[in-house]
Amino acid sequence: LIAQSGGPTSVINNSLLGIIEHAIEWKSINQIYGAVNGLYGILNENYINFRSLSEKKLRSLRNTPGAALGTCRYKITDEEVERIIEIFAKRDIRYFFYIGGNGSMQIAHMIYEKAHEKKYDLIVIGVPKSIDNDLMHTDHSPGYGSSAKFLATCILDIAMDLKSLKYSNRVTIVETMGRNAGWLAGSCTLASKIDPDIPQLIYLPESTFSKEKFLFDITRIYQEYGYCLAVVSEGIRDEKGRLIAEQDRRDALGRDQLGGVSSYLTQVIEEQTPFSARYLLPSIWQRSSMMISSKVDAEEAYEAGKRALEYAQKDYSGVMVSLVRKSSVNYEIDYDIIALQKVAQHEKKVPLEWYNETLSTMSKEFIEYVEPLIQGEILVPKKSGLPYYPVLTVQ
Amino acid sequence: LIAQSGGPTSVINNSLLGIIEHAIEWKSINQIYGAVNGLYGILNENYINFRSLSEKKLRSLRNTPGAALGTCRYKITDEEVERIIEIFAKRDIRYFFYIGGNGSMQIAHMIYEKAHEKKYDLIVIGVPKSIDNDLMHTDHSPGYGSSAKFLATCILDIAMDLKSLKYSNRVTIVETMGRNAGWLAGSCTLASKIDPDIPQLIYLPESTFSKEKFLFDITRIYQEYGYCLAVVSEGIRDEKGRLIAEQDRRDALGRDQLGGVSSYLTQVIEEQTPFSARYLLPSIWQRSSMMISSKVDAEEAYEAGKRALEYAQKDYSGVMVSLVRKSSVNYEIDYDIIALQKVAQHEKKVPLEWYNETLSTMSKEFIEYVEPLIQGEILVPKKSGLPYYPVLTVQ
Repeated sequence: LIAQSGGPTSVINNSLLGIIEHAIEWKSINQIYGAVNGLYGILNENYINFRSLSEKKLRSLRNTPGAALGTCRYKITDEEVERIIEIFAKRDIRYFFYIGGNGSMQIAHMIYEKAHEKKYDLIVIGVPKSIDNDLMHTDHSPGYGSSAKFLATCILDIAMDLKSLKYSNRVTIVETMGRNAGWLAGSCTLASKIDPDIPQLIYLPESTFSKEKFLFDITRIYQEYGYCLAVVSEGIRDEKGRLIAEQDRRDALGRDQLGGVSSYLTQVIEEQTPFSARYLLPSIWQRSSMMISSKVDAEEAYEAGKRALEYAQKDYSGVMVSLVRKSSVNYEIDYDIIALQKVAQHEKKVPLEWYNETLSTMSKEFIEYVEPLIQGEILVPKKSGLPYYPVLTVQ
Repeated sequence: LIAQSGGPTSVINNSLLGIIEHAIEWKSINQIYGAVNGLYGILNENYINFRSLSEKKLRSLRNTPGAALGTCRYKITDEEVERIIEIFAKRDIRYFFYIGGNGSMQIAHMIYEKAHEKKYDLIVIGVPKSIDNDLMHTDHSPGYGSSAKFLATCILDIAMDLKSLKYSNRVTIVETMGRNAGWLAGSCTLASKIDPDIPQLIYLPESTFSKEKFLFDITRIYQEYGYCLAVVSEGIRDEKGRLIAEQDRRDALGRDQLGGVSSYLTQVIEEQTPFSARYLLPSIWQRSSMMISSKVDAEEAYEAGKRALEYAQKDYSGVMVSLVRKSSVNYEIDYDIIALQKVAQHEKKVPLEWYNETLSTMSKEFIEYVEPLIQGEILVPKKSGLPYYPVLTVQ
């Protein structure tokens, strides 16, 4: 049984395909199931049988964004974990693959432990997936490279626009995802490989955000360049650990206004400086673009799925596949396993040595870390001038 | 002398190249100048000489977004128009090409009239450019097709994400540009060529926006599909003609909160319905992406520039190049001219017959109109996994 969980990525279906294609060749198993919408599907026994899907349909998972099986966000109870083991036993499900982030690895761990407690033979393997790149004990997470490439491309493109209209007295803010980790915001710095001037300012959740310093920074940059392009992570916080997005803001009814730190900072700039400001919010597009996704990322996502199957064949259980960087000079990845327990509910942050808090810029080491992950393009079939996704869902 | 004006587009440099490449071969002229930052450059005599640029650098304008000459937004005075004619006379500038939208065509017209008044022989040709597609007397404007393709691709991609997480109780709003015309918002409907379900709702400035109907619509759609994807133009207005973005919203100091209609509607949804909501704001990226731009659009932009030069050679003046659709079945474009006066300061709106106000959807006729404009891809050179723009500016 395979399930996808949490926020989709551009390449999450590559991991799914990596498991299926190698499971199909595995003589020891009868059926290969997919649970529709993650835990919901597992609990409601809403399963599809991958053996009944055509090879062509399966192969097209390679360039289909979103989670083809459907996914979910769901807080599971201990009773439901027990119920899952009962369902697995009833259906003789002996291998469970869970493609997801740190919350999902926690659930996979709970299922693994419960099976052990109930003396039910079950192999549980986690496959890492996170655009936030916050999974511990893996060099990086499949999904991140594509989102990083998407954001860096965005920065590069809009800088061409900003440079066309210098001294227009306007500051532009791009808000990235990444509630507690700044890997996505930081990745925007890759645009500097093409245009060394940009992005000029980056703010990460790992570093305390000061409104005063921010206003000082944008003024300094605007005066130097004639335009200002700042990147903020949605999760930036003040010295008390409060989200910047949640401060000082009232709606028409006088209540706290939530969300949209870039919208809030735009307002601060317009109130407290002579600049006007605008913001760009790529939102869920940063995790669902196929046209601007990374081939390296897609291949690693596929390989992580394939390796998960291989580890299952070797009877490893209660582990997540991890990526190990063999060398940073000549980028090469090896695969290993790590106990689910060590990954579950932890978060990998951007090391502060990779961030210049004074200038609000990323270090050379950060660039060297991310750059290999965004290489290569995925050829997306086209129809009517648009990407053609033949498999809207496999459900 | 050539100048670019107003907001850049992905393909505005193609029009520039179309003029230059054919001007170079024209024996009757000595120099080919570009004014840096539009009117600013014209008035400050900040000119570059295109003859001194390498052929390679010129050719790379084909896939460079932004306005390579720089552009401006500037309200010109009558004295400045006189000053322009003096500068032109001093430098013996006899041909003036202005690539821009309806505001720019008004300025081109003023310069044309002033030259006539001063008995200075001057050929003035406008080249249409508008992502808003609101120029009159041309079938469409170069720049629009690429932005339309960009937005439809965005809708298609994020729908894959939304379908992965059905029944998450969330409404997603995408805000497009288009202050007074709904061509961009409407173009999102092209995604339906790949996935007939989306986008489910579109709101144009041409049709009165009712908050009550909007909330009714999203509820109806969510109940039917399990998710809701709505597109709003930044310029939607209520029955009194007031921008929706400017209503009922107070900042921390109790003043009117401007801008960001999607941010505002997100707040309305969260206050008045059981749904949570989020929004996606592509902002200036919708006019500066090269990876997701239209080959047809780029070629037409180039051709419009080339034709401008040819009309100048035939001594036409005070005119804008216009695109004429010969047939909608087998898409084919011819080129003509129209008096600047007829274009200046007018706006072409989406015909309301092409919009279903009850269902908030676009008609088949609208799709047939836009679809040919988004065809074909532009091959963008890559470096370090990102688009490579060798000519950051020609300045």
